[in-house]
Amino acid sequence: MSEIWIMRIGHRPERDKRVTTHVALSSRALGARGIYVDTYDEVLEQNIRSVAERFGGDYSIKTGVRWQDAVRNFSGKVIHLTMYGERVDEALPKIPRDEDIMIIVGAEKVPAEVYQRADFNISVGNQPHSEIAALAIFLDRFTGGEALYSDRNGKLTVIPNERGKTVVENTKRRRMRPSARGRGLQEESDHPLLHRPRRRGGDDL
Amino acid sequence: MSEIWIMRIGHRPERDKRVTTHVALSSRALGARGIYVDTYDEVLEQNIRSVAERFGGDYSIKTGVRWQDAVRNFSGKVIHLTMYGERVDEALPKIPRDEDIMIIVGAEKVPAEVYQRADFNISVGNQPHSEIAALAIFLDRFTGGEALYSDRNGKLTVIPNERGKTVVENTKRRRMRPSARGRGLQEESDHPLLHRPRRRGGDDL
Repeated sequence: MSEIWIMRIGHRPERDKRVTTHVALSSRALGARGIYVDTYDEVLEQNIRSVAERFGGDYSIKTGVRWQDAVRNFSGKVIHLTMYGERVDEALPKIPRDEDIMIIVGAEKVPAEVYQRADFNISVGNQPHSEIAALAIFLDRFTGGEALYSDRNGKLTVIPNERGKTVVENTKRRRMRPSARGRGLQEESDHPLLHRPRRRGGDDL
Repeated sequence: MSEIWIMRIGHRPERDKRVTTHVALSSRALGARGIYVDTYDEVLEQNIRSVAERFGGDYSIKTGVRWQDAVRNFSGKVIHLTMYGERVDEALPKIPRDEDIMIIVGAEKVPAEVYQRADFNISVGNQPHSEIAALAIFLDRFTGGEALYSDRNGKLTVIPNERGKTVVENTKRRRMRPSARGRGLQEESDHPLLHRPRRRGGDDL
C-alpha cells in the first residue's frame, strides 16, 4: 500500500485549532502516514503526538512547512480536495495505486497555484460543506476504510461494543503466551477490561 | 428513501460554532433533511439557512431542542455515533431501510442515557478522531453518496471542473423552454457560466 500524506494549508492556530486537529486525527484514523501544516503550531503538534502515542501507530506531524516545499520534496501524486473539482467517483479510478499521494486540504482561501500544481483537483460533492468531511470520505473510499479498526499496538485499544465502553490497556502488549487450550497465541489477561459506563459518558480524548 | 435527521448535543456556541457548522453542512451535502441542536444559537441558524437558501434543497435547522424531546417526537431508529460503538460495517446491514433515522452526534461529553436510548451505538473506527468525519463516512456509506451531486435547484450550482472553478447562477432556474432541436426541455441559457479562476482562489462560502 502506498503512503498517504496530508498537507494542510491556510492554518491559523487560533481560529483553526479544532478543525485542523480534526483533519489530522481523522486522516490518522483512516490510515494516513502524517500531516504537514503550513503555519507553525506547537500546541497542535503536541496534541496530535499525544493521541498517537497513546493509541499507537506511527503518525507524524510537522508544522511550519510551506506547501510548495512539501510538494517539491514529495514523490507521488498531489491531490487537492475542493468543492470545485472533478467528481470523486470519476477521479478515483484515475489515481495510480503504486505511488504515494499527498492530499492538500485548504482552509478558507486556497491560492490559484494549488489548482495548477495539483495532479488532481477533486470534489466530494458540489455543495459547500467541510474539509474534514470531504477528506474523510475521500480517504474512506480510496482505502476502503481498511485502517479504521486496524491494530496499532497502542497503549490503549477501544473494543467495539454495542452498548457501553470497552477500553483495553495494553501495558504488556508484547507478552504473548501459548493458549492453555491449544488455540495458538493468546494475550496475557492480567489487565482487566476497563469497562466504563460512567454516569457522564465523556468521549473526550 | 427514508429521511435522515441529525441531533447535535453538547453544542456550546462559542467553542463549537465551526465544528457544529461543519456537522450541519456536511450532513446537508450528504442528503440529511435537517439538524436539531440542543443549545440555542441564532448565528448558527442564520449561517446554515444562508447556505441552504443559496445552494438549494430543503435542509432545516432548529436550535434549543433537548435531545430527549427530539427523540421522543421522532418515529424511526435512533443511531448514536461513538468511537466505542459496534463496527460500522457490521451495524449498517442491521439498520432498517424503510424507517427514518435520527443520528445523535455528540461533542466532548455524551450522557450515558444516550448510549441506553439509542437503537444503535455505532463506531466509525475505534480511534479517536472527529465527529464530523465519522458522520460523513457513516452517511456516505449509508446513502452510497447519492446526494453529493444531486440537483437542488439552488441559486448557485457548482459544476465539477478538473482545473478551475465553475459556478452557475440559476436566476431563471424555473423557466424551461422546449429545445429547438426537439430534445425535450432545455434550460434558458442567458446566464453565462461564471468561470472564476481568481488569482486568490477563495473557497469561502
